[in-house]
Amino acid sequence: MPIITLLTDFGSLYPAQMKGRILSRIPEATIVDIAHDIPPQNIEAGAFALMATAVHFPLGTIHVAVVDPGVGTDRAGVIVESGGHLLVGPDNGLLLPAARALGKPRAWRIGGSPRASPTFHGRDIFAPIAAILASGRRPETLGETILPVDLDYGVPIEEGRRLRARVIYVDRFGNAVLNCKQIPWDCACLKGHLLRRRSTYAQARAVEPLIILGSHGHEEIAVNQGSAAEMFHLAPGDEIVLEEGPCSKESYRSE
Amino acid sequence: MPIITLLTDFGSLYPAQMKGRILSRIPEATIVDIAHDIPPQNIEAGAFALMATAVHFPLGTIHVAVVDPGVGTDRAGVIVESGGHLLVGPDNGLLLPAARALGKPRAWRIGGSPRASPTFHGRDIFAPIAAILASGRRPETLGETILPVDLDYGVPIEEGRRLRARVIYVDRFGNAVLNCKQIPWDCACLKGHLLRRRSTYAQARAVEPLIILGSHGHEEIAVNQGSAAEMFHLAPGDEIVLEEGPCSKESYRSE
Amino acid sequence: MPIITLLTDFGSLYPAQMKGRILSRIPEATIVDIAHDIPPQNIEAGAFALMATAVHFPLGTIHVAVVDPGVGTDRAGVIVESGGHLLVGPDNGLLLPAARALGKPRAWRIGGSPRASPTFHGRDIFAPIAAILASGRRPETLGETILPVDLDYGVPIEEGRRLRARVIYVDRFGNAVLNCKQIPWDCACLKGHLLRRRSTYAQARAVEPLIILGSHGHEEIAVNQGSAAEMFHLAPGDEIVLEEGPCSKESYRSE
Repeated sequence: MPIITLLTDFGSLYPAQMKGRILSRIPEATIVDIAHDIPPQNIEAGAFALMATAVHFPLGTIHVAVVDPGVGTDRAGVIVESGGHLLVGPDNGLLLPAARALGKPRAWRIGGSPRASPTFHGRDIFAPIAAILASGRRPETLGETILPVDLDYGVPIEEGRRLRARVIYVDRFGNAVLNCKQIPWDCACLKGHLLRRRSTYAQARAVEPLIILGSHGHEEIAVNQGSAAEMFHLAPGDEIVLEEGPCSKESYRSE
Repeated sequence: MPIITLLTDFGSLYPAQMKGRILSRIPEATIVDIAHDIPPQNIEAGAFALMATAVHFPLGTIHVAVVDPGVGTDRAGVIVESGGHLLVGPDNGLLLPAARALGKPRAWRIGGSPRASPTFHGRDIFAPIAAILASGRRPETLGETILPVDLDYGVPIEEGRRLRARVIYVDRFGNAVLNCKQIPWDCACLKGHLLRRRSTYAQARAVEPLIILGSHGHEEIAVNQGSAAEMFHLAPGDEIVLEEGPCSKESYRSE
Repeated sequence: MPIITLLTDFGSLYPAQMKGRILSRIPEATIVDIAHDIPPQNIEAGAFALMATAVHFPLGTIHVAVVDPGVGTDRAGVIVESGGHLLVGPDNGLLLPAARALGKPRAWRIGGSPRASPTFHGRDIFAPIAAILASGRRPETLGETILPVDLDYGVPIEEGRRLRARVIYVDRFGNAVLNCKQIPWDCACLKGHLLRRRSTYAQARAVEPLIILGSHGHEEIAVNQGSAAEMFHLAPGDEIVLEEGPCSKESYRSE
């Protein structure tokens, strides 16, 4: 029973067309949606979502990810094998952070198909490739090895008591995930607000902003019972500047 | 083939992480999404959605529900058994209306886990517990019996010819579900509009508001071919006051 | 392992109730969501989505589709067989474009059920019928043959160098699908903008509007790295007037 995950920026309808193609070849496949609401064409947000999620799936899982502004151009398709998982999608960096989180990546180039729609490789190339891999075919029989396009969230830039970081993902609660694995302070200022480090959202008061290390290992700007994205007007791709903040001794609700 | 349902306020991404954890232990599980768009941290709306849906699943189904503003605090986790179903989630009342709709609830406290993320018990505690239960383990081997936290939608308050009720859920059509199983009148006034009781939406004229008994057994404020939530500015948690209305003899389209 | 697809305008919650009913009868069914975000009560948009998707599923798939403004009235329910697929839903035209795309349709009328909720035939009639069909029952044992209600997107009207067409679907990228399989020009004007025909989105410059033949065989108005629905204020049901446009010789990025 192969497990195939799907991650796209397609919304509805198109993911189902991919599932139809997969089930036509592998009726017993278990297909799991990771997300189809990635901000349109935002490769970085898609890469983060895939990285945060793929590691929780069992060995042998095949991940198909399609955030693909270059569909139909000469950008290649790619199969990546890493840590016992396979990843399939456009060769635009989308798969690499997840592949590195899973293990040591190796990659093969996928050729196009004369019958493929120039606008929907997810359905006409990547989904069928995933089904072929799920049926046991090895990636090295499907293409030449390549060095895949990489994607790097970069690291925050420290400038004295300032830290310049980038928002790479915003979740449904309005939590803004940063390209940062450790803010070096217990308190920080952002746009005139003081943010205290917390280990749970509920440690902060209602609608109080906070810093928290997300369950995916990246730092987040959050607001207890509120939305940091709304309070600070944050969206994926935005740059923010944090400043070291004064931590008062007061430690309300620091249970 | 165990069936496991998921209900959360997580949007996308995080439910897939829960599925990865479940499938890692029980690859043959059938996982069904009930809803992941519960208004953030709205336990009451989540409880209604679970109650309205769990009863339609077969005996033996395991329901994992996570609307969990207190994640990481000392609120307990709980397994509830009722009517041949199992329910798993935070002990904050979320599971109880569904459990009572299914049968006579019994409950066991789930301990924390030192390796659990303080912000994501859905993935690190509740999903693994569901998988363990799906593999046949009995809840009494996983924790002590407890009296779970209850949740009560309350009952509408009658004040002469007035009825004070609360909106507990709003669906995609803008239908507003009330904490009320029977409005005692055939016509009611709400914010200056006359609402007639109907048995189907189509009995009302276009954009005419109406009262209808929902398929879940609660009364709804609805608008044929429109949205009651928009017309009357209704959201989960809002209190409304209905007044007995004058029913004219005219019965347009009362086929 | 029967495959059952679901397409509705229900959002969340109600589709899960349908799945509970299906799995109660056929626990081994593979259930695939096509879309649950069809614009409320928009039969035409639902019909397009089903037509574009059903053809990608294997023989024997059962498609349940419910966009049903007339639920509870005397509109009939219908089973349609076409090209080795079965389709189940209200007899309001929703199923017919997909059925014609699949093959040569035959249809049977489904009776009501005294125990069915007057507001939720998806759960109480169509889902159980799909499960009964999935268990091998033939449609002719479930109802009399009927001539189902048809739905026709119409064809665009040519008026000299003008083409009057209708938007029948808008996807998450804001691409507007037309009731038109071939715009006869390589360039067209829409609301003062020049739209060039492209074979991939990336051939256009950033935020440049374009005409493209969608992967479903209908013409689309699109904007590279943007949203045609936003740029031109387009929604399903809108009528647009395209005018033959002057194609300059310049062919930027026409790789």
